Parts: sequence; structure tokens; C-alpha cells
Amino acid sequence: MIDIITSINKMRYVSEKKRSEGILIGLVPTMGALHEGHLSLVKRASEKTDFVVVSIFVNPTQFAPNEDFTAYPRNIGDDARKIELAGADCIFAPEKSNMYPEGYATYVAVERLTDGLCGHSRPTHFRGVTTVVTKLFNIVYPHVAVFGQKDAQQHAVIKRMVKDLDMPVEIDVGPIVREPDGLAMSSRNSYLSAEERRQTVSLYRSLCLAEELVSSGITGSEDIIRKVRAVIAEQDRAKIDYIEIVDPEEMTPVDDVRGGGLLALAVWFGDARLIDNIVLSGKDS
Amino acid sequence: MIDIITSINKMRYVSEKKRSEGILIGLVPTMGALHEGHLSLVKRASEKTDFVVVSIFVNPTQFAPNEDFTAYPRNIGDDARKIELAGADCIFAPEKSNMYPEGYATYVAVERLTDGLCGHSRPTHFRGVTTVVTKLFNIVYPHVAVFGQKDAQQHAVIKRMVKDLDMPVEIDVGPIVREPDGLAMSSRNSYLSAEERRQTVSLYRSLCLAEELVSSGITGSEDIIRKVRAVIAEQDRAKIDYIEIVDPEEMTPVDDVRGGGLLALAVWFGDARLIDNIVLSGKDS
Repeated sequence: MIDIITSINKMRYVSEKKRSEGILIGLVPTMGALHEGHLSLVKRASEKTDFVVVSIFVNPTQFAPNEDFTAYPRNIGDDARKIELAGADCIFAPEKSNMYPEGYATYVAVERLTDGLCGHSRPTHFRGVTTVVTKLFNIVYPHVAVFGQKDAQQHAVIKRMVKDLDMPVEIDVGPIVREPDGLAMSSRNSYLSAEERRQTVSLYRSLCLAEELVSSGITGSEDIIRKVRAVIAEQDRAKIDYIEIVDPEEMTPVDDVRGGGLLALAVWFGDARLIDNIVLSGKDS
Repeated sequence: MIDIITSINKMRYVSEKKRSEGILIGLVPTMGALHEGHLSLVKRASEKTDFVVVSIFVNPTQFAPNEDFTAYPRNIGDDARKIELAGADCIFAPEKSNMYPEGYATYVAVERLTDGLCGHSRPTHFRGVTTVVTKLFNIVYPHVAVFGQKDAQQHAVIKRMVKDLDMPVEIDVGPIVREPDGLAMSSRNSYLSAEERRQTVSLYRSLCLAEELVSSGITGSEDIIRKVRAVIAEQDRAKIDYIEIVDPEEMTPVDDVRGGGLLALAVWFGDARLIDNIVLSGKDS
């Protein structure tokens, strides 16, 4: 059975030992409830490094008080089996009380890139993400950390943080993994009722439509967004949070995708707030 | 002549090499304009580690727009000679444009401990300090970093940050070094006119008075602060920013020093805002 480390000191000791032996360490930070998307990142990490650590920590600081921290699915037994099969070497699953002991007071925040998209409706979310990722980097001290393209704003924010704070780690991004009907894999898909699940296919359909529009020469963001919005708005269970086309690094809106752009969206279906995105390549790219 | 490294990548390379050879690295972060106080920290670092890096960087993010960033004294030639004599192995003196390149967006902030004292009159100061110290730790990756007791709130904030973010570094604190008449060494003492300089001795005199009061059984903070204030207020050039007695770790006011307390003060003399402090040990400690 794969080693599950819960102690911060033990994890640091293991990592430092591996590092001092010249072994390349890979980290895949997760909140557990693993699906094929996460496991594809574990495989990616295994190809790039020698010792893969998967962290499982439902991080309270990235949830607002009204969000689904308590409801978020947890099943470390299942997760451990999946992680082992995917080829990781160790699980780091710290306790909340050790990650944020009484008196905790420090936060890492990336400005500007976190103002829009998910940062707009979840104003403290990214601060929680960058804080816990900094902690994980300091504990596991990986050479490479792998994040998923589904969380496009998240990895842009983390890349900015790593660059700005001179963190000695390489950030690698794995592609979105989808269900056969196109829905992006997400731990939150488990919240969906059958009818909501049926309607969520509109998300991927709308992203494909955007790609077709660009291929046919329509590159104005306003035009594309209006048509994407129409596809999703047809679904009576869908409540659109945002649909935007932004610069993939800076997360600022772009008017035209001829120079490229990231179409990103967040849509509620019942209790599930789902995000998805597609990189649009215009004529210039 | 001592090696002066300006490149972030070169500094990281040197540190990683030393580390991989099992050499203990010490870091003394400074803004240059070195005096005996800084040099005592260098000597301290030399006693605890094998390879001592002194960083010299006048960090813009810890100065507010109305503060003395431009006026702050700079003389790397002098500094280099002093550092070499003090027994350090290398100077890290990065460029501002490399530390904060265009598009920079990330800050590390410690809450609560930074609300009072210097954080009250300099609200963005500690965010700048914790951000640059994080960067220096990530670049130099020291085993031990040495700070001065003169900046008592600063080292409390940095210790909190290191603990909260699981940074793998030990924070060591060296005592205040004073001029023969008791004035704490500070690069900002160079701003003082002769008359202002003469009046600054009231600071140390007031701290000694506080110690005497405690020895004689007066332990109420209000009482002590009133008497300290009277000593300083006698000087016509003195403009008191704050005089407080706080918990040395949490930086929250304490009413009575029987359980110990840190008497900290900040006082303007002309263009120089000077800080000083003393640890008061009451009956219980």
C-alpha cells in the first residue's frame, strides 16, 4: 500500500532525503475526490520526475464561508488506491489543525490576475490557493509541480507567484480530461442531479462552437461570447456566473482573439459551480 | 575582494551548490549603509553557519511613497569592505528591476501582528518586508537567517511568517548595538543634525528608566509609558510616533509587565524616524 504521510515534519524529512540523493521530486496538489483528470496529472508527474508526491488537503482558506467546504467529497481510501495505480510514490495528507494552527496569520496573494473571472465571484479564493500552494512547496520542495488546465486562472496565478517570489520550482500544466460527452471531469460533478448532468453538456458544446466560430473567421470576443452564452442559456438549470475571453497569462479581457485568447466560463447547475475553458487560436497565432 | 553577486540565477546556483555539498548557509538581509549593528549580525551568522551571504537591497516595497526610499544612504563600496572584514563570504546585491520586474503582482502579508506599532504609521511596510524576505529565502535558501532585535516587530513578523508558511529556515536574532551614549545604531542616524543627535540620547535614557521602574516594582504599562513619554517629550525636536508595551511575539498591548513585555517606541527627530526597544522582565519571568 502506498505511504500516506500526515506529518509535515515527516514529509519534509522524506523530501529532503530524496533531494539530497539527487532524486527529482514531483508534486500534484489535490483536494482529493480524485478523478481521471487528477490521475492524468499524476502520470504526467511520473514521466517528468522520479518521486511523485500527491497531496490531499481540502484547503479551508480557499473556500468562502458560504461555499462547499463541508460538502466537498472526501474519501482517502479510494483516493489512495487510485493514486497508487497511477504510479505515485507517496501521499501527503496533512491535518487542517497542523496546516493552519491557532494564531495562523500569513497569506500569499497575487494581485491583478485574481481580480476577474473566478476571483470576481470568489474574492478570497485565490489567496487561499496561493497560500496553501506556497506551504506545500515549502514542505514537499518539489522540482516540478503539476496543475490542470481546467483551472486555467489558477495555474496562471501560480505561475505568476512562482516567478514573482523566485520559487525554485517548475510549473507544469496537464490538459483537461473530459467525460465521453465532453463534460470536464470535476469532483463537483458528483453534486449534479441526473437532469442537471444532462444539461451540463451544453458547456463543452458551447466551447466547441466558439472554436468553430474562430475557424470560420469570427474573432470578435463580444460576438463569440454572445453565441456561447445563447447555447448555455437554453438550459433551464444553468445559471451563468461568467463567460469571458481573456489573455491566458494576464487574465485581462481581450476584444479579439486574432492574437489568441482563453475562453473561460463558470456556470452553476444546481449546487455545482462548474468551470471550463478552451484556448482559442486566432489567425496571428 | 569579496564576491558581489547581482544575478538572481547566479546567487541561486552558488547557494544550491553549497547546499548540495552539505555546507550550512547563513543569510543577513540588509539595505546596506552598514553599521556595527549589521556587522554584529554578520559575525553571528559566521558563528552559526559555514557560508555567510549578506544581501544588500534597498527594498522599494517596504517604503511608502512619502518615505525616504530615495534619500536612504547607499554606498556598496564601503559596505563591501566592512562585510569582508566581518567575515562574510559573499554579497548578494540584486537590481530593483530584477527583483520587481514589470508585471510584478505577488505579496506575502502577515496579518494581526502588523496592525499596531510601526504597522500603524507605516501600513504597507511589513508587507514589503515579508515579500522581499520570502524572495531572498527562495533565492539564497539559507539554513539560518539573522535579524536584529532593534526591529523587534519585524523579527516577530518574520518568525510568524516562517512558521505559518513552513519555510525551512531558522530565524536568529542578534541584540541591539548602541553608540557609546546609548543611541541604537541605525543607518538613519546619518539624517540627524548635531542638535537632533544630542537629543536622541533621551530614547535610551527613557528605556533605562523603564527598566529601573520595573526593578523597583512598578509594572503597570500605563504608568511606565507615561514616565517614558515624559523623558522624550522634554526634547523639543522629538515627535513621538508611538510608545507601547506589547507581547514580544504577538505585538498586542499588555497592561502589566509582570509576565514580561516589550517596550517599543518610534520617535521622529527631524527627518529621521528612529525606533528602539527593550525587553522588560517582570516578576513572573
